[in-house]
Amino acid sequence: MQRFDVHILGCGSALPTRKHLPSAQVVNLRDKLLLLDCGEGTQLAWRYTELNWQNITHIFLSHAHGDHIFGLPGFVSTMGLLGRTSPLFIHGPADLQAFVEFTKKITGVEYEIHFQALDSTLHALIFEDRSMEIWTLPLNHRVPCCGYLIQEKQGLPHICRKMIDFYEVPNWAINRIKTGEDWTTPDGEVIPHSRFTTPPDPVRSYAYCSDTMPVPELAEWCRDVSLMYHEATYAEAESTLADNYGHSTARQAATIASAAHAHQLMIGHYSSRYQDEEVLLQEAKEVFENTILAEEKLRIAL
Amino acid sequence: MQRFDVHILGCGSALPTRKHLPSAQVVNLRDKLLLLDCGEGTQLAWRYTELNWQNITHIFLSHAHGDHIFGLPGFVSTMGLLGRTSPLFIHGPADLQAFVEFTKKITGVEYEIHFQALDSTLHALIFEDRSMEIWTLPLNHRVPCCGYLIQEKQGLPHICRKMIDFYEVPNWAINRIKTGEDWTTPDGEVIPHSRFTTPPDPVRSYAYCSDTMPVPELAEWCRDVSLMYHEATYAEAESTLADNYGHSTARQAATIASAAHAHQLMIGHYSSRYQDEEVLLQEAKEVFENTILAEEKLRIAL
Repeated sequence: MQRFDVHILGCGSALPTRKHLPSAQVVNLRDKLLLLDCGEGTQLAWRYTELNWQNITHIFLSHAHGDHIFGLPGFVSTMGLLGRTSPLFIHGPADLQAFVEFTKKITGVEYEIHFQALDSTLHALIFEDRSMEIWTLPLNHRVPCCGYLIQEKQGLPHICRKMIDFYEVPNWAINRIKTGEDWTTPDGEVIPHSRFTTPPDPVRSYAYCSDTMPVPELAEWCRDVSLMYHEATYAEAESTLADNYGHSTARQAATIASAAHAHQLMIGHYSSRYQDEEVLLQEAKEVFENTILAEEKLRIAL
Repeated sequence: MQRFDVHILGCGSALPTRKHLPSAQVVNLRDKLLLLDCGEGTQLAWRYTELNWQNITHIFLSHAHGDHIFGLPGFVSTMGLLGRTSPLFIHGPADLQAFVEFTKKITGVEYEIHFQALDSTLHALIFEDRSMEIWTLPLNHRVPCCGYLIQEKQGLPHICRKMIDFYEVPNWAINRIKTGEDWTTPDGEVIPHSRFTTPPDPVRSYAYCSDTMPVPELAEWCRDVSLMYHEATYAEAESTLADNYGHSTARQAATIASAAHAHQLMIGHYSSRYQDEEVLLQEAKEVFENTILAEEKLRIAL
């Protein structure tokens, strides 16, 4: 299978702790690197991933709160120092335009930076290429905020080598069979393409949902998602704080993941009050067993 | 003696490494905290100092390069989240005004932030209170840049308890004697104040010199400084790079410290090329023996 990894660079919330950096993640999809949020320290945490700075093509920002964006000037600047020349595409709610413009100005980098201003209230396809689609996920926070769904495109079926050999199919015909053409033998016999193939790899997807109160529509938008990251800033005992500050409890995150039939849930964006996030994990697992805790330096292969 | 500590929060240079954070230091002078530069990650490193955020009164920025200032938005924002109400004074070369203004805007903090635009070409007294003076140190870098000299004011002499008891001097007279009044006994005998006192503590001072090529005038401006921090980005083998980028070698830093008759030299702002800074330390020590390497979490009591 092609590579589809999620690297956690930071999974704390606004107040700094000794344990967590603020929000940032990298998705590595077939060696294209997508950065999701860029909290302070992202460029420092990047050093531990051993990923290539030059393979970053897109940065997706969820919202204009410092713990999700204050690493951007340093990150942009360092890519310039390292000799980047290829353009960088930054996406995020429209009110981030001024911050991105200021980042361009203060860093003075010479490569192009394009900003795509998003309407964070729409569930919309905002990017696609041959291998993936990226959709916005409208979230409910104190400021315009959206998550992102990153989804592989359906690949081609796998060729069954034995059948190819048996019918002596030439190499030039193999891609045609993969894309659905039947094969006609020199004797004129038509062999259905499906006899030469086995089903393609299942489509994998990753949903990044931070920061937000519970949004029931996520269950539909992220139906059958391979891995859902959902913020879980608080435990149930602090559910009033979650309401007041536009966040979710671990139980609420798990309820969304369960409704979406997610294969796995990863929680994060922990309030600094928790010395140990075990309470969050346990509360989530009561609702959705296949839950894990995000932590710095974690890499998950989908 | 009153407290006069220097805490190193970060001592790397522009490119991030796994070992060093970019530039930031805290001076704790009698529990007033002064931040010198504010590279990305300052608020994270702060957590290891166990210093009180509320005791920060002033931030002194050396110049408008990202590795010295990109931690400012996060630092300012977190002080707001922690309930700061007292005003914050930020000082730096005049071209930092726009960055400080943008920081105020993007963080939206409610406490007052005042910016003092400095002429980085002048060696001038820019701040004083009852216990200290702060002077700018004009540096020579690629953009307007200044260091800072933080100097205690001369304290009062110490009282010699035995003499006070012998002459039965009442408490109300002690401060007068300290400030230079002689004592007249009930019999009319005049005892010189100097007989009741021992000399005050020696005046301590700290010079922060980053980033810069060698500036010979530092020897005069920092004469007899207790501790000089001087950037030493490169070893002698890379002295051409030092010239080209407006930096110093370790040997050059030591030459300045020696000419200033500094009591001790601390070098830092290491290029990311050095896995081990021992080469820098050895080259500095050949010129100025009492040299140490800056490193994160180091605290030096003057």
